[in-house]
Amino acid sequence: MEEHYADSKAPKPLNLQARATRDDWLDACDGGVTAAQGFKAVGVHAGFRADPHRLDMALVVADEPCACAATFTRNVFCAAPITVSRRHLDDVGYGIARGIVINSGNANAATGSVGLETAERTTEIVGEALGCPPGEVLVASTGVIGQHLDVSPFISAMPQAVADLSCEGGKSAASAIMTTDTVSKEAAVCFAGDDIGYPGVTFTVGGMAKGSGMIMPNMATMISVITTDAPILPDVLHKALVNAVNKSFNKVTVDSDTSTNDCCFLFASGEAAPGALPFALDSSAYARFEAALDAVCQTLARKMAADGEGATRLVTVTVAGAANEEDADRAARAIANSPLVKTAICGHDANWGRIAMAIGKSGAHFAQENAAIDIMGLPVCRDGLTVLFDEEEALKRFENHEIVIDVDLGAGDAQTTVWTCDFTHDYITINGDYRS
Amino acid sequence: MEEHYADSKAPKPLNLQARATRDDWLDACDGGVTAAQGFKAVGVHAGFRADPHRLDMALVVADEPCACAATFTRNVFCAAPITVSRRHLDDVGYGIARGIVINSGNANAATGSVGLETAERTTEIVGEALGCPPGEVLVASTGVIGQHLDVSPFISAMPQAVADLSCEGGKSAASAIMTTDTVSKEAAVCFAGDDIGYPGVTFTVGGMAKGSGMIMPNMATMISVITTDAPILPDVLHKALVNAVNKSFNKVTVDSDTSTNDCCFLFASGEAAPGALPFALDSSAYARFEAALDAVCQTLARKMAADGEGATRLVTVTVAGAANEEDADRAARAIANSPLVKTAICGHDANWGRIAMAIGKSGAHFAQENAAIDIMGLPVCRDGLTVLFDEEEALKRFENHEIVIDVDLGAGDAQTTVWTCDFTHDYITINGDYRS
Repeated sequence: MEEHYADSKAPKPLNLQARATRDDWLDACDGGVTAAQGFKAVGVHAGFRADPHRLDMALVVADEPCACAATFTRNVFCAAPITVSRRHLDDVGYGIARGIVINSGNANAATGSVGLETAERTTEIVGEALGCPPGEVLVASTGVIGQHLDVSPFISAMPQAVADLSCEGGKSAASAIMTTDTVSKEAAVCFAGDDIGYPGVTFTVGGMAKGSGMIMPNMATMISVITTDAPILPDVLHKALVNAVNKSFNKVTVDSDTSTNDCCFLFASGEAAPGALPFALDSSAYARFEAALDAVCQTLARKMAADGEGATRLVTVTVAGAANEEDADRAARAIANSPLVKTAICGHDANWGRIAMAIGKSGAHFAQENAAIDIMGLPVCRDGLTVLFDEEEALKRFENHEIVIDVDLGAGDAQTTVWTCDFTHDYITINGDYRS
Repeated sequence: MEEHYADSKAPKPLNLQARATRDDWLDACDGGVTAAQGFKAVGVHAGFRADPHRLDMALVVADEPCACAATFTRNVFCAAPITVSRRHLDDVGYGIARGIVINSGNANAATGSVGLETAERTTEIVGEALGCPPGEVLVASTGVIGQHLDVSPFISAMPQAVADLSCEGGKSAASAIMTTDTVSKEAAVCFAGDDIGYPGVTFTVGGMAKGSGMIMPNMATMISVITTDAPILPDVLHKALVNAVNKSFNKVTVDSDTSTNDCCFLFASGEAAPGALPFALDSSAYARFEAALDAVCQTLARKMAADGEGATRLVTVTVAGAANEEDADRAARAIANSPLVKTAICGHDANWGRIAMAIGKSGAHFAQENAAIDIMGLPVCRDGLTVLFDEEEALKRFENHEIVIDVDLGAGDAQTTVWTCDFTHDYITINGDYRS
């Protein structure tokens, strides 16, 4: 009697497309939101938090008004600063802006018309200090919901903060936007313009993010600010940002795109090649910029997932062989959001039954007898049946920082990757305790 | 400056329809799956589990072949016994059956063609022992996934199990189907036939369920067997069951309807009124039966939710004022499945911000400024704004066994209720440990 798949034959490798590898023309570089030319930043303690040692306000400012694009949460309960920033980008998500101010400690969410006035007033305060119209200032907030945001820390802290803006300020800005993040998150890459029509020029894309709070469904407060010194027009910038966000931050489990305060901003100063023609949509220069932006966003997204509340492991879930993109996404998110899968990883249990159930209920189209699963490179399921695997080897691989789950639905050619983290006692402790 | 909603006015009561109260013609009664006339049951240790003190096989048998209806999981990875039981009910979900056998300890899921043979063979073994065709026997399994189910315990235990079938066997049967359930789950009600055309007759509806495993999204293994002595034809029975399940078991958080092994069976012996005309679909008798069935299913569903893994509280989420049924369900499930809401309850934190975010991202249609929320009867949000509440009173109410969350979306008249539990350290311990 056949007991398991592997009794009679060796498991076939999964039909995965090659994992994204960084292109060799792309170089990692130090820094974050001030890595690109034409930007200064600072993080200060303004007074939104009680602890005087904790930074709670970040400013990122371009030397001149420049192209800006943004993506915002679609949560009905969206926060006041989201509404105001959207307004300042003419409700289309792109335009010209000078900078952004972000406070932590209070989300200015569920605060009604008072909250909107506070957010507008905040942009006036920044505009006065920078000498620009408030309409060129964007604003974001993260922290407690349902409490009014006091505007006075902006007033008292702004003059010194503006005076302290610097090209090295990216690091303190990244710290100032943290809430329950355990580490600040920065990333930057650069690429040469030589063979794309900008000889002798090096372009940089860099950014910072706060993630966490919660990398679970529902309500991650995700804020990211990215800058580049490439010359790009606002509408083109917006297109690139939407694409990049869909392949990165929006792949950090379900609905991280829909919390009250989620937002991602991208500024382009053009300072790497002043006076040069902007990147055209179908050019090789734009293609390289897109890839560089993807790299920054995915690096930040992975850092967010790895720093989920209470997390000890980054979990990378790839679903291949799906009938279409939507099915791949649905199945991957079902796995990544399954508390049972996430607790199994916490318990170092290579439990493919829980993965199978998650894809089975996801709504993705496939036949049970065509499904195949690898956990950390170990085949555990083929043709919908158990493959016997080396449990000791599995335990060893669970020591890795990144746990890779690969699924082949055997129903088509679509593939996607999402990122999440394991689910631990610390998650319960943090969230049973912290009023967010 | 207006700080909060309650500064200027007293919070309006929510626009909730009256909570379902038990009709006065309906009486609770003792027992479960053998409360109705014409049924016997037994729970035994057959040997699927190593522990000889743990019951692991349940039989529920009608004295005569009778009407039967069932609902089954829609999970693509459905277990072998699901496929076989569906087949025995002619793939329409209703027919004539004699009884059902359920084992715990092994789910016979992801076991391929071997699993199907095992499930068919099981029905033959039961059929031989009862003296009925295997096609009149249904089968269900719960436990570990991806391991083959040994058929020999069925063979060795069946003669004694059949000999021990009794009208008092409902209790041991309910114990035998438990997995990580901490208590067995039974419920029964009865109603008089006097004013519905069956003078002098008392009809009973009773049942048992196993829930838990996991009351989280994805993959609750839910099995329930319900019996009645009312005279009802199979197709009518099926209609009643589908309706009842949709208002009860399927309301115990998202996707509990789609795990590999979920199933619910309903048998109708007609023994309360032998020879009487069956209940017609539009009759008052049928209406009473429907209400009685709803009561049994909802009682069992609430017991399942309250006994979620690691749970300390039953959480009842009602969303009213929705634009339509679907929106009400979507919003209620978003709340009930939010780990942040569930950990907040574990931490006794009346955190309406997390509830607001859950409904905001649910996709339900509403305007933020019309939303209102009560937690345990305390108004915490009106017009989308914070209502100041007595935190000490809230802490006191968190001591209750049942935590009630009520939401009014202010967008229409549709309302629904779902049940879940809080999210505790024990959940992580159980699931980081138990290979299910």
